[in-house]
Amino acid sequence: MLVVMQAHATPEQIKAVCEKIELMGYRAHAMPGSERTAVGITGNKGAVEPGTLDELPGVQELIRVSKPYKLVSRDIKEENTVIRFPGTDAAFGGKGLAIIAGPCGIETREQAFAAAERVAQSGAQFFRGGAYKPRTSPYSFQGMGEHGLQIMAEIRDEFGMKIVTEAIDNESLELVERYADVIQIGARNMQNFSLLKKAGRMRKPVMLKRGMSATLEEFLMAAEYILSEGNYQVILCERGIRTFSHHSRCTLDLSVVPVARDLSHLPIFVDPSHATGHRERVPAMARAAVAAGADGVMFEVHPSPDQALCDGRQALLPQQGAELIGQLRAIAAIVARKVEAVR
Amino acid sequence: MLVVMQAHATPEQIKAVCEKIELMGYRAHAMPGSERTAVGITGNKGAVEPGTLDELPGVQELIRVSKPYKLVSRDIKEENTVIRFPGTDAAFGGKGLAIIAGPCGIETREQAFAAAERVAQSGAQFFRGGAYKPRTSPYSFQGMGEHGLQIMAEIRDEFGMKIVTEAIDNESLELVERYADVIQIGARNMQNFSLLKKAGRMRKPVMLKRGMSATLEEFLMAAEYILSEGNYQVILCERGIRTFSHHSRCTLDLSVVPVARDLSHLPIFVDPSHATGHRERVPAMARAAVAAGADGVMFEVHPSPDQALCDGRQALLPQQGAELIGQLRAIAAIVARKVEAVR
Amino acid sequence: MLVVMQAHATPEQIKAVCEKIELMGYRAHAMPGSERTAVGITGNKGAVEPGTLDELPGVQELIRVSKPYKLVSRDIKEENTVIRFPGTDAAFGGKGLAIIAGPCGIETREQAFAAAERVAQSGAQFFRGGAYKPRTSPYSFQGMGEHGLQIMAEIRDEFGMKIVTEAIDNESLELVERYADVIQIGARNMQNFSLLKKAGRMRKPVMLKRGMSATLEEFLMAAEYILSEGNYQVILCERGIRTFSHHSRCTLDLSVVPVARDLSHLPIFVDPSHATGHRERVPAMARAAVAAGADGVMFEVHPSPDQALCDGRQALLPQQGAELIGQLRAIAAIVARKVEAVR
Amino acid sequence: MLVVMQAHATPEQIKAVCEKIELMGYRAHAMPGSERTAVGITGNKGAVEPGTLDELPGVQELIRVSKPYKLVSRDIKEENTVIRFPGTDAAFGGKGLAIIAGPCGIETREQAFAAAERVAQSGAQFFRGGAYKPRTSPYSFQGMGEHGLQIMAEIRDEFGMKIVTEAIDNESLELVERYADVIQIGARNMQNFSLLKKAGRMRKPVMLKRGMSATLEEFLMAAEYILSEGNYQVILCERGIRTFSHHSRCTLDLSVVPVARDLSHLPIFVDPSHATGHRERVPAMARAAVAAGADGVMFEVHPSPDQALCDGRQALLPQQGAELIGQLRAIAAIVARKVEAVR
Repeated sequence: MLVVMQAHATPEQIKAVCEKIELMGYRAHAMPGSERTAVGITGNKGAVEPGTLDELPGVQELIRVSKPYKLVSRDIKEENTVIRFPGTDAAFGGKGLAIIAGPCGIETREQAFAAAERVAQSGAQFFRGGAYKPRTSPYSFQGMGEHGLQIMAEIRDEFGMKIVTEAIDNESLELVERYADVIQIGARNMQNFSLLKKAGRMRKPVMLKRGMSATLEEFLMAAEYILSEGNYQVILCERGIRTFSHHSRCTLDLSVVPVARDLSHLPIFVDPSHATGHRERVPAMARAAVAAGADGVMFEVHPSPDQALCDGRQALLPQQGAELIGQLRAIAAIVARKVEAVR
Repeated sequence: MLVVMQAHATPEQIKAVCEKIELMGYRAHAMPGSERTAVGITGNKGAVEPGTLDELPGVQELIRVSKPYKLVSRDIKEENTVIRFPGTDAAFGGKGLAIIAGPCGIETREQAFAAAERVAQSGAQFFRGGAYKPRTSPYSFQGMGEHGLQIMAEIRDEFGMKIVTEAIDNESLELVERYADVIQIGARNMQNFSLLKKAGRMRKPVMLKRGMSATLEEFLMAAEYILSEGNYQVILCERGIRTFSHHSRCTLDLSVVPVARDLSHLPIFVDPSHATGHRERVPAMARAAVAAGADGVMFEVHPSPDQALCDGRQALLPQQGAELIGQLRAIAAIVARKVEAVR
Repeated sequence: MLVVMQAHATPEQIKAVCEKIELMGYRAHAMPGSERTAVGITGNKGAVEPGTLDELPGVQELIRVSKPYKLVSRDIKEENTVIRFPGTDAAFGGKGLAIIAGPCGIETREQAFAAAERVAQSGAQFFRGGAYKPRTSPYSFQGMGEHGLQIMAEIRDEFGMKIVTEAIDNESLELVERYADVIQIGARNMQNFSLLKKAGRMRKPVMLKRGMSATLEEFLMAAEYILSEGNYQVILCERGIRTFSHHSRCTLDLSVVPVARDLSHLPIFVDPSHATGHRERVPAMARAAVAAGADGVMFEVHPSPDQALCDGRQALLPQQGAELIGQLRAIAAIVARKVEAVR
Repeated sequence: MLVVMQAHATPEQIKAVCEKIELMGYRAHAMPGSERTAVGITGNKGAVEPGTLDELPGVQELIRVSKPYKLVSRDIKEENTVIRFPGTDAAFGGKGLAIIAGPCGIETREQAFAAAERVAQSGAQFFRGGAYKPRTSPYSFQGMGEHGLQIMAEIRDEFGMKIVTEAIDNESLELVERYADVIQIGARNMQNFSLLKKAGRMRKPVMLKRGMSATLEEFLMAAEYILSEGNYQVILCERGIRTFSHHSRCTLDLSVVPVARDLSHLPIFVDPSHATGHRERVPAMARAAVAAGADGVMFEVHPSPDQALCDGRQALLPQQGAELIGQLRAIAAIVARKVEAVR
């Protein structure tokens, strides 16, 4: 259920509606828009008994949301969600293209700073690096842990880039929130609902990667878990799905970009590095992602990929990364990232 | 690396080998067999420097394990792992067929007892029921939590069946271990490596379900995470994969049964209820699973499926469950569950 | 549209209904059942204007068939289609289990006769062998052509088995119909609609293999192409689909068996040899197919698989084939191949 | 096996090499390059016995081609294949972007001319339209046949665009070659090897669409069938694969573009209309295809999509098509369609 407020509704009126909803035993989610605020209601089993909500001052109308996802839906918030970082021009979902680059894993202070310097020069607003690495084998490098986070915090201070890094469980989530600017939840944890709920109680933006076998609806429902707990700053990220087609590590499903933009107000990102698994395929797929309308791209850069402890084969050389960013910005200028709705 | 002991090696000699391995900075895993014990070595980066291990008393030979999975491999343990429950004839991986049945979720004490009574009568050795339910939607029934576990513990006392139930995070894992007999880790958490490691430090058997997009190698590697922490009692469970084929909720990949039996010594189970999503398809696929050589089958039974809070459409009526078990035992008698190796 | 005749309708009344339908510009398909005959109408765009059909003598009622497939649907023919071969007990869809065995390709007269002798001894009613081989590479062995067909015709005369072999285009289709007893259309040609239509004008039964990416609906629609031309003797055959799961060549989708039996009256077969690609996996999946309710199984047997010109790795040795058939008949005796409908 | 000629080899020397190869019982395929000619050898079982080939005048060296595809491989021809249409600037694989547009099916002369006029105005060099339609249902519109081909031939005369249309069997193939400029072979016929061989004996270029479950290797092998018969003018076309992901009709696998460009010298196209199935998704995926490096795009345009007899939902309005072509040319100018090889 959605309570649409009148255009001139006052903050007090919105607050009164929220309080009334909470009194009824539900949860209220005020979603401000450029013209009016809408208040989403969750926590109900079946239909909300709207009672006298529509008689409250400032309420324009009540709308039932029929989709299984509520708060992530464009039905509840028509405008794109823009996630800003005060004091910088870094943003997700705004007019500019957001670029996240950096090595797969933080391996040493030297490696991380060498990568960060080159990434900063190339014009990326965000630096990525893994301190906690979900690895297929228990015998592979599992990341530096908190020390890796500390190195990334220093990189932010030194180069001004915002830090994006992955949390893999409740313990690492708290540490990641403390040190980083954007919490990444990986594909393998996309339906780790316990982690999603906890991320929903954090105050930092969450980049949620699509699971390798997740439908778009399941992907949006996973984001809904985060929003339903009160954290509305979520970025979706396509990173390839599992198919029979094995010339590429995963099959990058770029058609999810225009469809997600249609169904949801959340920003949508693409990670071509994990999808392709090969440095030489990354530029083509990064360009394709921007041409398809993605809000940004995340890719891996390593100063000396041959010595990387994980996924070196998919990391661009810093110079390649810089060239690619130039191409991406040129393509973004051609593509109006507007929604082309199916009605 | 695998240290194969001589057939007549003494417990002291085995202990000495393990201590030597630990002294070298690795982890030792003694795997007793019917004729001899093998000691697996993990925790090494690259090849183990075997030093003077082969000069220790009782050591027959050292073998390099080339597969990415070590402890789950038949290379390290030729005989089937059999998981027994002392004082009962319930077992996983033994000569008999193991049957796990029960409702998807524990909803009330009455519903659970009604289901359990019928399941016990039908001859199942294990009772299943969810106290923590991983649900696609944050707005769906999420399970009764600890109270559901308490009900299942009462059911064990009343009917003598062993209890299988799912843990979804570190908190629920500790509770599940306290109340249940077998810890289930669901498909969505198959690569929740943090949870796998913690399950590897538990003392109860773990039933690990295959992720919907997991290759067999990834499935075995997930099991390896559990064994590598010292818990060698793991049961694999196929429950359907994601494919384009949508006449069934998932595509049950029964060919994994003979291949897993060839590659690993761990018991292999099949869950036809979640795979098909339809009561009417469950018997055919349960029979097929046993005919393919599965060590057992887990399926859902509900005394009144139409009122189930989750997945009622796939639950068998108790009478159907009882008939099915009869057919399964008859098929199991025809199928020698022997390994047909590809060499 | 379906015209259901009264139980006591005479052949003349049925004929009159068919003529009336043809006069209206449609095509009539009389489908006799044990209690009554139904007459399917195809060739219409949109709804049939039933006119005065229901006033004709012997007509009980008119039913609209809402599914996209008409003639293959159980809505139009409730009883299983049984395809018999007069003078023998070989049948598809009857009470007994049908077994088709033989080498992948006919390579020489000696190889074919050696295989046939062993296959006949093992109790298979049908002999298979390829004279026209659809091969991924233009440089691979493409089959012996008509000479291969002649060898198989001799095998029929010698051993009494019925012959199943593949046609790959219009030319080979005519030859296959001349020499063989059952025309196979392979997975790669499942949507070669031109070939399907021509097969629909043949008078021999057609075994239609499911395409590697065909949904069940598409599979049934491909069969509908054959029936719509007047050939109602079609056997469906599952042979594995393309998925990400690569421990097996294809993923045998056995859940199609109970669903196809529910939706269609046509017999349903399974080919575990092409699905698994490994001799050692074939018996497990053949047993699973029969346990799931298949009307029969087709598998490959070769007297000396190591010298086979194609797919030798998946061919059973004759002795393995004979043992397997024994197991399959024992399982079939347990499984009542009845329809378990989802309603 | 590949015979590389010296840079200054004469036509007579090349001819002598080809004759020698044919004398040896193989087939010779002379592939001219900008610097030198290479002569591919096919028709051999196992390794070619090179005999005295390397002693012939003008021969530089003999190279073994280890890939299963030979003539389509970059190993045999380093330069891109460019397919030109004399007297026009239409080309596949050249520097410019090739655009194929038109309705799914030719329905009437009026509809086809209305579409063609708008398509010609928008700057497309090629007009597409189906006269033979492979339809899932035997009861759907199957195309106008030869009369549709005649209409398209008139369109070529009227508007100067080259005609691309599908052949579905041997009969239609001969007619399509007579009337059209480019023979399309559809996804469902990608492994109709009989049709491929016949197309290989035609003298018109062939656009080969990737099958819905074809690996890249199988796709290239299907092209190899055509080249092996002597027709070297083949254009590859990605049109979406079958996956579990159902927000789009098929999953457009754009990563095939850079990989195909690396492995093969053939032009690579993308069809976003059939992949997405929705008009609103087509522009995003067409842009992505060009950004990924495709040589061109084929999409559907219909003057009044709501009245289309097939696939109207995926056809762009003419105005949308014209706008899209502008964007595509702008993106193409940014993307150097160079090969980024994985070595």
